[in-house]
Amino acid sequence: MDISTDRLRTDIETTATFGTLDGDGHGRTVLTGSDANQKAREYFLERLDDAGLSIRIDSVGNIVGRWEPEGASGAPVASGSHLDSVPEGGIFDGPLGVYAALESVRAMQDADRSPERPIDVVSFTEEEGTTFSSGLLGSSVACGQRSIEEALSLSDDTGQTLETALEEIGFCGTGRLDASTWDAWLELHIEQHIALERANPPAGVVTDITGITHCDVHIEGEANHAGSTPMDERTDALAAAGEFVTAVENAARAASERAPAVGTVGRLTVEPNATNVIPERVSMGVDIRSTEYESMNAIVEQMRQTLEQLTETRGVNTTCKRHFDLEPVAMSERCQRVLHDAGERATIETMTLHSGAAHDTMHIARVTDSGMLFAPSCAGISHSPQEWTDWDDCASATTVLAGALAELAGAT
Amino acid sequence: MDISTDRLRTDIETTATFGTLDGDGHGRTVLTGSDANQKAREYFLERLDDAGLSIRIDSVGNIVGRWEPEGASGAPVASGSHLDSVPEGGIFDGPLGVYAALESVRAMQDADRSPERPIDVVSFTEEEGTTFSSGLLGSSVACGQRSIEEALSLSDDTGQTLETALEEIGFCGTGRLDASTWDAWLELHIEQHIALERANPPAGVVTDITGITHCDVHIEGEANHAGSTPMDERTDALAAAGEFVTAVENAARAASERAPAVGTVGRLTVEPNATNVIPERVSMGVDIRSTEYESMNAIVEQMRQTLEQLTETRGVNTTCKRHFDLEPVAMSERCQRVLHDAGERATIETMTLHSGAAHDTMHIARVTDSGMLFAPSCAGISHSPQEWTDWDDCASATTVLAGALAELAGAT
Repeated sequence: MDISTDRLRTDIETTATFGTLDGDGHGRTVLTGSDANQKAREYFLERLDDAGLSIRIDSVGNIVGRWEPEGASGAPVASGSHLDSVPEGGIFDGPLGVYAALESVRAMQDADRSPERPIDVVSFTEEEGTTFSSGLLGSSVACGQRSIEEALSLSDDTGQTLETALEEIGFCGTGRLDASTWDAWLELHIEQHIALERANPPAGVVTDITGITHCDVHIEGEANHAGSTPMDERTDALAAAGEFVTAVENAARAASERAPAVGTVGRLTVEPNATNVIPERVSMGVDIRSTEYESMNAIVEQMRQTLEQLTETRGVNTTCKRHFDLEPVAMSERCQRVLHDAGERATIETMTLHSGAAHDTMHIARVTDSGMLFAPSCAGISHSPQEWTDWDDCASATTVLAGALAELAGAT
Repeated sequence: MDISTDRLRTDIETTATFGTLDGDGHGRTVLTGSDANQKAREYFLERLDDAGLSIRIDSVGNIVGRWEPEGASGAPVASGSHLDSVPEGGIFDGPLGVYAALESVRAMQDADRSPERPIDVVSFTEEEGTTFSSGLLGSSVACGQRSIEEALSLSDDTGQTLETALEEIGFCGTGRLDASTWDAWLELHIEQHIALERANPPAGVVTDITGITHCDVHIEGEANHAGSTPMDERTDALAAAGEFVTAVENAARAASERAPAVGTVGRLTVEPNATNVIPERVSMGVDIRSTEYESMNAIVEQMRQTLEQLTETRGVNTTCKRHFDLEPVAMSERCQRVLHDAGERATIETMTLHSGAAHDTMHIARVTDSGMLFAPSCAGISHSPQEWTDWDDCASATTVLAGALAELAGAT
């Protein structure tokens, strides 16, 4: 059973022409409901149709192409990813996993390997979450974590709802894709880090996806004249925030000695933000991740203690809202084993690693056996036109995926 | 010799109607070249004319009204301040000093106290520096620190030059007001801090005006995925900036044990500034002031050392540009003594203090004997519609100013 690098490459490169960016690298912007998103979806439908798959679009725009040849029955095996991108993102993040799943089906068809179970090739709506949600939108509905109604009523910055946006591009279907009906789920994705590049195998089997907590932190001091207010009479929100940023880093470093853990103050804004005015307010966005939920909680707890100390020592008022929280998930042993075995059969080296990035698989793993496979990212760069994965690596990882899907679906 | 609180109040309240703001407090926005600025200037001309002063407008829009009654000769004594404001500023910052100078002249006229020297009542162009300059614009030309040509070619955000802006409001005059021809200069201003309010005297004699250094500091790290980049593999510009902010505060605290000194990171921006992306670039604006220039230099040196350490320990690239630098200036002994004496004669208590804020007097003090008098600011608030000084305090401080001007001008 051989996958076709050319076919895979053509699909990814064609998808890259929708929302394509001028300038260096290979960039695209494909936001939910945009013209580029419509074109990427329509091209996908054509490719599914060409491969003889039956197409279904659910109420939130998730697309499924089912290969159900004669004799296939029972709970399907599914694989896919997403077609949307972040603003000025790359061409592999999402499309690789969607078209690798389709290519796996085509390779089985070419090799006359008919599965015992149906195989679903899937594209989830808005994985990146830059328009209507904070991400993983379509999969949150497919796993039952969010209702169709709730999802459709989400709105973008202009007030337009997801429902209207999907209707306008012709992708507001019916019913709900229910991931719990799948026997198993696999997702191929670029690694977005350098572990594979450093160790050299073209494919990595994910053991765990880290949980994510996002906290909004506000520190309020007192604006005052930077010249006439002595050091011991000021309540400087940014001086307090400086200590807080250091504390987040220290807490994450301490936690990472026990299990993979990171903590980042990625967003910070100052008001009034003038050189000669003592800062009154600082707002921060903190990103915390770990493969151990207790480690995430420990970092948040350390943040809260630091904020309390700052109130005592500096007189600032502080708030910390943990407004987004996903627990870490382990990939199923069965899916991990099947992926490693497929690599071995194809004499493609695999290694194990964890995912520090969130993926739709986080949701799907809560309702069915799930696995993830990573392909190398050059220099670990993603969410950028500089994002790149060599075509040979794409092909190797797709070969592993195809072998694992064939195994799970009983395509012998 | 009695000053009229009503006359002073009417002038300040009328000036407050130009560029007035809705909402709480008493706010105004009077930017150089604006309609409000034109009206404030035209009203000032009327008031100078009413008092029989001869008016001169120089090339950069500085306004001088000269009282030169028969018998007055020699180098004039001068006093004044500015009529412009910061955006959403208060009604006393500037106008109090301009109209207190005029009221001093009117009080001498009413009391038939004819001076031996002419008295100049002055309004400098753009003290606040929000439109064409970083501040103290008119006085920089009057003291010869900046040429007329250089000043007139300064442009605002839209590209309009100061020359065009002044022509449009009819205030681009001729020649150069030369402050070095004055025998002495006094400026009354609100304190913008709480030293007077705390100690209770209605007037404070300034001993020194702190110098000011502004530095632009840039820290450059590497943007990366906040989830997939381990703590020991990141070059986080904001984590570095957190340490820098703490270091500036510590350096200023250490310096303030020797002499009045402050250090403030008032401006900080992060790029790309997204919660889930490790910060790549941080830009900061640092404000450093002290009555001792060596203390200012010591804080800048400590900042530079910290940046070097951050490069070594974190691998960030840093730059620090000291783009604005004014040395501290001491007020003349003569002017300080005359102000204290005037308070004593009027049984108005005075105290001594230093100014942490910059004023036009910083420039004027380099070319002639200069003094500054402060009136209390409620709660130390300024550059805000909440800025306030009680009318009784305005009157008391103006009485001290009038007595000192009369003494300097030999108006007996």
